[in-house]
Amino acid sequence: MITAFIKIKTKGNDDIINITPQIQALIAQNHIESGIIFLSVIGSTAALTTMEYEPGLVKDLSQSFERLLPFRKDYAHNAAWSDDNGHSHLRSTFLKTNFFVSVSESNLDLGTWQQIVLVDFDTRSRERTVVAKIII
Amino acid sequence: MITAFIKIKTKGNDDIINITPQIQALIAQNHIESGIIFLSVIGSTAALTTMEYEPGLVKDLSQSFERLLPFRKDYAHNAAWSDDNGHSHLRSTFLKTNFFVSVSESNLDLGTWQQIVLVDFDTRSRERTVVAKIII
Amino acid sequence: MITAFIKIKTKGNDDIINITPQIQALIAQNHIESGIIFLSVIGSTAALTTMEYEPGLVKDLSQSFERLLPFRKDYAHNAAWSDDNGHSHLRSTFLKTNFFVSVSESNLDLGTWQQIVLVDFDTRSRERTVVAKIII
Repeated sequence: MITAFIKIKTKGNDDIINITPQIQALIAQNHIESGIIFLSVIGSTAALTTMEYEPGLVKDLSQSFERLLPFRKDYAHNAAWSDDNGHSHLRSTFLKTNFFVSVSESNLDLGTWQQIVLVDFDTRSRERTVVAKIII
Repeated sequence: MITAFIKIKTKGNDDIINITPQIQALIAQNHIESGIIFLSVIGSTAALTTMEYEPGLVKDLSQSFERLLPFRKDYAHNAAWSDDNGHSHLRSTFLKTNFFVSVSESNLDLGTWQQIVLVDFDTRSRERTVVAKIII
Repeated sequence: MITAFIKIKTKGNDDIINITPQIQALIAQNHIESGIIFLSVIGSTAALTTMEYEPGLVKDLSQSFERLLPFRKDYAHNAAWSDDNGHSHLRSTFLKTNFFVSVSESNLDLGTWQQIVLVDFDTRSRERTVVAKIII
């Protein structure tokens, strides 16, 4: 099993970052023809998923999160800890912090317009760590 | 590691298809007693999850998606690309395109009334590919 | 591959239980330095995810589920089966029944305030089984 740690600087506030190039680099560096890459972002206010990474959907996704799990001052988390990121926690819990992607014939098993994204829901910029474990 | 590609024809528009029989066939064909099956549907407008696959919940699930992430003409994705499937993308991103299921004593580690389903959120019929990677 | 079955008694009704201690025990018992732990809760009315496990967020999370996928008598599932847990099924399908967590240097790859939780959405107390498969 190969382990790699990917560091990513984010702006927070639903910053949606395409991390597919970093994952593809892992394939090239480790000469992976077939396998599975297991990704986990450390922390409880970020998440991993896939999307067609184009500006329209980036906007639609952020607006959907705001509609479904809105920023609100009165979450119990915010009241208890004088915090402002209760919604960030809830979005991470719903979308989850992990994702796996398989590799066949040295390529990620993704669609042509499908990218792996890190979403940082926190209310400030962060340096995030994505742990990658690779099984070949 | 065993790799298999499962082809599934869908009708789109929240077509919810029970793919448990195809997964069980993989167990039988490969004589798997204990292991994990990693499933990924290729593309950014479909998803994988589990449910009790009965007509009532199939209807309830589709209606819940329509309520939470409705069809709307004015998504930025639709406006930018003269497209109509912005909601399909958002639903896939929220529910995610992958799922794993473990195997113990030659059976899927699922409940009696729990099935693995492919949901095709796109607005047209598609032939979907589900990649299965099996670790024993 | 190591297999373990973890039994957990729940109260149902969005009972959110921190199962991180049980996962950490698996690491200690099996002397795991680096690996991945694949978790699946059996059944179609529970789910696994992560959160900062503190009383405020436990309350906020339960309220968010009630707002997004509310208890309602008129789900088709309830009508068809004289049941009351249609919302429990839908929440499980959205949040999903599985989760994986990797291990590096004998520690879970989680944040300081990030715990693994089992959420039991069913409308009664249950004894749940979480299957853990460990690859080292």
